[in-house]
This record gives sequence, structure tokens and C-alpha cells, in this order.
Amino acid sequence: MRAAVFEGPRRIEVAERPDPVVASPTDAVVRVVLGCVCGSDLWYYRGESPHELGPIGHEFIGVVEQVGAEVGGIAEGDLVVAPFTYCDGMCAHCRAGVTSQCMAGGSFGNHGIDGGQGEAVRVPLAGTTLVPVPGSGHSDDTMRSLLALSDVMCTGHHAAVSAGVRPGSVVAVVGDGAVGLCAVMAARRLGAERIIALSRNPPRQVLARSFGATDVLAERGEEATKAVLELTDGVGVDAALECVGTGQSLGTAMAIARPGSVVGAIGAPHDIDYAVMDIVVFRNVGLRGGVAPARTYIPELLDDVLEGRIEPGRVFDFETDLEGVAEAYTVMDERRAIKSLLRVGTI
Amino acid sequence: MRAAVFEGPRRIEVAERPDPVVASPTDAVVRVVLGCVCGSDLWYYRGESPHELGPIGHEFIGVVEQVGAEVGGIAEGDLVVAPFTYCDGMCAHCRAGVTSQCMAGGSFGNHGIDGGQGEAVRVPLAGTTLVPVPGSGHSDDTMRSLLALSDVMCTGHHAAVSAGVRPGSVVAVVGDGAVGLCAVMAARRLGAERIIALSRNPPRQVLARSFGATDVLAERGEEATKAVLELTDGVGVDAALECVGTGQSLGTAMAIARPGSVVGAIGAPHDIDYAVMDIVVFRNVGLRGGVAPARTYIPELLDDVLEGRIEPGRVFDFETDLEGVAEAYTVMDERRAIKSLLRVGTI
Repeated sequence: MRAAVFEGPRRIEVAERPDPVVASPTDAVVRVVLGCVCGSDLWYYRGESPHELGPIGHEFIGVVEQVGAEVGGIAEGDLVVAPFTYCDGMCAHCRAGVTSQCMAGGSFGNHGIDGGQGEAVRVPLAGTTLVPVPGSGHSDDTMRSLLALSDVMCTGHHAAVSAGVRPGSVVAVVGDGAVGLCAVMAARRLGAERIIALSRNPPRQVLARSFGATDVLAERGEEATKAVLELTDGVGVDAALECVGTGQSLGTAMAIARPGSVVGAIGAPHDIDYAVMDIVVFRNVGLRGGVAPARTYIPELLDDVLEGRIEPGRVFDFETDLEGVAEAYTVMDERRAIKSLLRVGTI
Repeated sequence: MRAAVFEGPRRIEVAERPDPVVASPTDAVVRVVLGCVCGSDLWYYRGESPHELGPIGHEFIGVVEQVGAEVGGIAEGDLVVAPFTYCDGMCAHCRAGVTSQCMAGGSFGNHGIDGGQGEAVRVPLAGTTLVPVPGSGHSDDTMRSLLALSDVMCTGHHAAVSAGVRPGSVVAVVGDGAVGLCAVMAARRLGAERIIALSRNPPRQVLARSFGATDVLAERGEEATKAVLELTDGVGVDAALECVGTGQSLGTAMAIARPGSVVGAIGAPHDIDYAVMDIVVFRNVGLRGGVAPARTYIPELLDDVLEGRIEPGRVFDFETDLEGVAEAYTVMDERRAIKSLLRVGTI
């Protein structure tokens, strides 16, 4: 099969790879229909964090081609959403809902596990990982939103859930990347009354508003803090969602969060030069989040996608085919696209 | 009046100070009966954090001597518990229960506000700060426990509440100081099924067990982490309570907390050389806590003290009078005492 492979910083290539097979009775082989590039892929692309050379991409939807003897609930021909981490559904962490920390789990597109930026994937622990999509003949818009459930929408949702967003909440979202935009949508879905999006990029501002942002602020750093405090009578927001992962964005999120609240933090940390504990202790602002347990969240979000209540697929504003994967990275790296979609196969 | 004053690192003296008076109609003057030394007082005592020269001590109980015209709910002659921070009860943070972040508030024993280690205190915002104690003729044991409500017991309780301790929880407490011991008690009070206390000091181990610890571990650092994971089948605890404030103790708390859980962090941060965000994000372990909103917690804990269900006063294992305050610091600094009580006045 053909698959994207990481050959070193800024070197994404498409190469021949062995066709995946069912190697364990809990495996399935999925033929990828849509894949995409994650903001976190840019860290190794830019050489800012390590990544094994080889297959890449952890988000995909596809059609089940083959199942192992012990795989339940999934059949050949099913359209499935793959959460970006696989899990056994049985360990203590999975039972507690934290499937992203499964004791037997791992993630796609690294450490010898096939990536979603390729024609097919061997999915370990397939019966407890893949989520079958009911119905057939889904529109292209629906398919794009189903792809967004693989990671980005679940991650935005995790920020909102971790910060305790509830009906009536005043929320601020730091970061206007695809995850930040999904966090806006998730906050609205959970009933937030006011959603302040921090963005200085006009097309993203428009998207944020259409996803539910009631206020958009272009300020950054201390100016952003000042602006949010002004909007909230000096109190701060009930829930700040940190969707970037740098020290500056974290600092802003923790400064605009009201005492007693929890910052929903899902940005992979980079360059955190920030006295986190001083704020936790002396301002009574908590922190919670991390790698989203997508497998736990997909079923409820899937219903909303299928009924048209949320359209997270709208974060994809660039698309190409598998052979164009290098450009899919480039446009995101240069911030010319929010998120790149790869049309890999047909249903 | 006589009051302890900070004259610089390791220089605690007793000096003449002006008798406090009602300066604002929301003030009260309280004659101190019992005061004490806090673990956090040791930071400036040791020169490790700044403190204004002048009055010190933020924990006390006493008798109301005079009230301003606008003070409600408190009368001359009342026995009162003073939370270690004063608050107006009306601002957005107070209404949200986070009285320790009151927008009009402050703390005792610094910045020109009288300290609890002195004969009398002008209490700002007295009607919304002081908590009157019902009944009279309380035993000395009860009085000691009432004093513990001023800070240390509320702070241990805050760690447990912040970490979400509930009936059946498996809890670990990092730190065997007075706050850690109170956190053990608070966890038991909230229904924890198993409480693992980390302590290598035999008298403190005994106290921890008598407060509800089911397991006591003498290990530290990586050995402690290993031991707790062994006790919990590799899963970690439902709630880790961080009651020290150093990088090592925080690292232990975050390593033994199970994914999806929240570390209750109340230790004033010192020497935190620890990649907090890596654990928050890559292990899905949250952080919450901070300066305890004692005013919010005192009423419910007061009932338990008066009915004998908790005895937090047992953390005091050294006592002296006001003139002996320097020794009260020394014995704690040298870890010869868990917590020092000062007998300042009579009821």
C-alpha cells in the first residue's frame, strides 16, 4: 500500500509499505477513506519534538476490510471512526473513562503502528477501539465531520468538559486553531451562555462566531487578559480553555480564569516558562485536561454529527489526496490552512 | 498590647504595639485567646520568602471586645474563630465560595494588619469574616480544635475537597505536617475507604493512623511512587493530596495520582523544578487547590468539632505563652514539633 512516512523534519514522503494484515485475533484492518493532519503533527514536522521515522497520522475514518477472530461489534464493510488512540476498554483507566491512558493502548502513526495518513491501517484492540457509524450514504459534509471525531472535536470537547463548562457558563477559548474552534463549538453544545474567542485571524474569527463565539478579541498576552477581565467585570471567566500549549497561552488562560475555576488544558506543552503552581495556589485556579479520551466521547458526539447539530468538519479548509500529503503539512505549517484533509480512498 | 513581630529571618520578638481600635464601622476588635504558628510562617522565618517587618500570625480564636456600627451577627463577648483571611462575603469570588480571593479581603499578620500572635486584633470586615462559636464552657481540647479551624484543618479539608475525595475513594496524602495530618482527617470525614499516608516520622505516623490513615509508607521520591503503585495494582490513587509544596512532593503526588484524577494541592510552592504541564497533559492528571476558603468551610467543620466527630486540635504538640513565641517557631523549624500553640489570653 501507499502511506505517508516521516523521513525527518520537513520531509514528509509517500512510500510503499507492507499491506496491513490481521496479526492478532483482536486486530482489524481498516481501509482509510479520509485522513488528515493534526496540529500536533507540526511539532515533529518542525523538528521541535521527536518522532520515529516511519508511518504518520493518527486521525482517520474508513471501512473495515478484515477482522480478527476475537473482534466483536465490528464487521467487514462497516464504516468506522478511529479514535486517535487504541484501547482495550477493560483496564482500570478505560473503565474510568480515560481511554487515552489505556494500560494496553497506544496511538496510531508512531512506534510501528500504521498511521491514518496511508491507505490502510492495522488497528489493534479493534473491537474496543473503533466506533461503527450507523446508516449509509452519508454526505461529504457528514463524512468530514465524522473524521473530525477522530481527534480534533473530541479534544476541543475534552477542554470544555475538563473545565466544567455547563449551562450558563462564561467561557474563554485561548487559541484559534482547529482544536480551539472545536472547543468553541463544544462549549456552546454544553450550554455556555457567553463564549469569548481569542483570535486575530479574520477567517478564523468568522468561523469562531459561526461555531458559537459571542465575543472575539484580537488582543494577546497581557492585553488579552485585560480585555477579558474588562468584559467580565474584573471577575474572570468561569472556564478558560487552553488550546495552544505554549507558556504565553497558558499564562493568559490562567490569568483570565476566575478563582475557583479550572483551566481546561489540552495543548501539548511547549516552551512552558511559567510558574504554574503559583497560580494554582495563590489564585485558586485549577488545571485539568490532557490527551482526550476520544473513544469515550465519540458515541455522544457521533449522534450530534449524524443529526446535524454540530459540524466540526468545517474546520477543514484545505484538501488534497494522499500523494499531496507534503503540501497538507506545508499549508498548516505556514498557517495558510486551519486543518488539512486527505482524501485517501472511496467508501 | 504585646504582640509577636517579625524583625527579620530567625528574629521573632515580642514588642509593645498600639492597642487595636475600631477604625471602620465594619471592624471588630478581638482579644486573642489562642494563637499558633503555621508551617507557612516558617518560609519567611527561614528567609525563604519575603514578609514585611511587623506583626505576624494569621490563626487565632478569641473573644469579641468591640464591634463597629455596621458589624452584624457578632456581639461583644462572643467567642469567635477567625479564618486566616478576612472577606466581605459579597464580591463575586466570595459568592462563589472562594472567600480566600475576596476582592476586598486580605490576610492577618502582614501588610499592617494585626497578627494572631498577639494580644488583640483589629478584624476588618468582621461581620462577614468571624464565625461565632455557639455554647460556652468549652473544654481545652475543644478550644484547641476550634483554633485548628482558623487555617490548618480548613486547608487539609480544601486539599481533599479540591481532589474530589468522596465515599469509597482511595487517597494518598503527601506530607506529614499539620496540614497533611488534617488532610488525612478530612479524607476520612469525606468517606475515603483507603488513606495512604506518606510519613517517615514515627510519632506522626501514629497520629496519621489515629486520624484515619489505613496505610503508612516511609518511602520518598521514586520509591514512594513505586510503593503506592504497588498498593494500588499499578493504577494510582483516586485522589493525591499534596501538602508540602516542593517539587519533590508535587512530583510524587502527580506520579501516584491515577489518570483522570485531580491532585489537591495546597502546599505553598517552593523550589518547583518540575514539568507540571507534561503530567497534566500526557498523564491526564489535574491540579486544584490553593489558599483555602476557610470562611466557607468553618461552619460545617465547626459542627463536627463541637460534636466531637473530629479533633484537629491534636496536631498541636507544643505549647507556650506569647512571650515564648520565638521558641514556638524554633521547635517547628527544627521539626521537634508538628505545630506550636500559643496560650495568649483567657476566655
